[in-house]
Amino acid sequence: MLTTDQLLDKIRQAINQLPVYGDPAGLYEPISYTLNQEGKRLRPLLALLSAQTFGGNPDEALPAAIAIEIFHNFTLLHDDIIDEAPLRRGRETVYKKWNINTAILSGDTMFAIAYGQLSASNPSKLPALMKIFTQTAIEVCEGQQYDIEFETSGNVSIDSYINMIRLKTAVLLAASLKIGAITGNASKEDAYSIYRFGEKLGIAFQLQDDLLDAFGNETLFGKKTGGDILTNKKTYLYLKAIDVASAADAASLKDLYSRRNMNDEEKISRVLSIFRNADIEKLTERIIMDYYNEAIDELQKIKPSEEARAALKNIAESMLLRKK
Amino acid sequence: MLTTDQLLDKIRQAINQLPVYGDPAGLYEPISYTLNQEGKRLRPLLALLSAQTFGGNPDEALPAAIAIEIFHNFTLLHDDIIDEAPLRRGRETVYKKWNINTAILSGDTMFAIAYGQLSASNPSKLPALMKIFTQTAIEVCEGQQYDIEFETSGNVSIDSYINMIRLKTAVLLAASLKIGAITGNASKEDAYSIYRFGEKLGIAFQLQDDLLDAFGNETLFGKKTGGDILTNKKTYLYLKAIDVASAADAASLKDLYSRRNMNDEEKISRVLSIFRNADIEKLTERIIMDYYNEAIDELQKIKPSEEARAALKNIAESMLLRKK
Repeated sequence: MLTTDQLLDKIRQAINQLPVYGDPAGLYEPISYTLNQEGKRLRPLLALLSAQTFGGNPDEALPAAIAIEIFHNFTLLHDDIIDEAPLRRGRETVYKKWNINTAILSGDTMFAIAYGQLSASNPSKLPALMKIFTQTAIEVCEGQQYDIEFETSGNVSIDSYINMIRLKTAVLLAASLKIGAITGNASKEDAYSIYRFGEKLGIAFQLQDDLLDAFGNETLFGKKTGGDILTNKKTYLYLKAIDVASAADAASLKDLYSRRNMNDEEKISRVLSIFRNADIEKLTERIIMDYYNEAIDELQKIKPSEEARAALKNIAESMLLRKK
Repeated sequence: MLTTDQLLDKIRQAINQLPVYGDPAGLYEPISYTLNQEGKRLRPLLALLSAQTFGGNPDEALPAAIAIEIFHNFTLLHDDIIDEAPLRRGRETVYKKWNINTAILSGDTMFAIAYGQLSASNPSKLPALMKIFTQTAIEVCEGQQYDIEFETSGNVSIDSYINMIRLKTAVLLAASLKIGAITGNASKEDAYSIYRFGEKLGIAFQLQDDLLDAFGNETLFGKKTGGDILTNKKTYLYLKAIDVASAADAASLKDLYSRRNMNDEEKISRVLSIFRNADIEKLTERIIMDYYNEAIDELQKIKPSEEARAALKNIAESMLLRKK
């Protein structure tokens, strides 16, 4: 079995060889700029690890794995327009560095290039790969739409929030794993279990991100905390606090989230104090552990040996232990 | 052989059955709004006619034909943002009726739905269909990028303009025909000839559109003429006039195209008068006929009987005889 580093090398090489240079430069430069940013390559790594877990050849999963990575980066280009985000991984976002039209059109091209990579898969697997890839792409768009709608909705339930992060974040991790399972000739049951593993893990991962945004160590987290609070983002922390806090605290939390012209430090500190009163950090850690344990339960169901599963479990742990 | 009307019925039914309803409504309503606008359905019609020409079953070409139609409509959503177009087929464009973010995200979803349709094709044809579809999608983006760049470029050659409209408009018509050829088990040579037929026809079609925008009969053309002139669009007419007009006329044409605050009627009439001096209407008609004849030459190369070709020739003629 290849190590994580060896698999990451394969991913890096494949990305370096993508057809993302050439004319018109105004279209391709933003694409190579985006794909050359050293991300974690988490999704393609999960795909290759999953293929290996089921005894498949990681090379066979590589085209679909790269397709997922390109698709993920494409969604960032369009999301950054929608979220008006100036920075991504410490660098200017495409719509800021170029303009909105470029970010739209270069993003569209990336989506097509992603399918171009996918189509280099083994033809006998292509219909199944296209099905999961396309279903997932649509779900990610649905998740992003819910995210947009929740910004202005006064009535978001915890269930609908979890469903939103499932669609926006978790299904793509799940699909990465399923793609590996398909190329590794896993049984339908195993492919479903590994998908569910990724889905639960992805939800835990996003909840962890929400938690770190409020309570993380800034040095380890790699960015300033409190961003979600300042943008009035109704994360699990906020929704749970509205649920369990005293009536007075819930009211003042709602009030704080309706204000736009308040001193940043003061707003963060007042929201965090309400979160602390309601024990939100512990409650969030608890639900993260619940999803994590459900994920591991799914992983236990798959046929491959304990040894083969270990690599996936390691990744799962590292995803949740990060930045603490 | 089915008639054009029978084929259009199939297309209409397939579009009515698309999975473009449901939640989140904010994502799907703009999609059904777009797809329910009765367009000419020219691209899927070409695909089905082509399949039939090669003795294939139009039903087998239907998923890919619908994929092309959805893709085409998706590009309109994003192009209308880029071109700041308020109206399309007499109705408000999606970004105007909703907003830019919705037009971006609903468009992205349509792109995925297009591939979802494509993947319902016969699995043995899927790799070839994906290849032409993806290559074409990328080329259409390249064409749109060139179109954007030409707006601010002072130095556009006629060749690069023709290449731009080839990418932006012609290759999708060509791909529609090729998709029909693939599902009809055409030989490689025939598939290539029918592609070239579509490419040449598409260039003629776009040049005709440029011509009608300046010299068309407004009632038959269905919209006001002079739009390209008012937006200083460097079409074939403009580029050819710069080439062949007197030095004084060329200079004043350039000057007119640099002005923004001029009376509309006056600007149109002065530009048209320069076009007339340089015999641009006749010169454009000549190049349209050249491309049309090249298209028909390609059509003659394909193996199927004269009778089978007749339907495609009829469509080609009707595309160029429209609105005169």
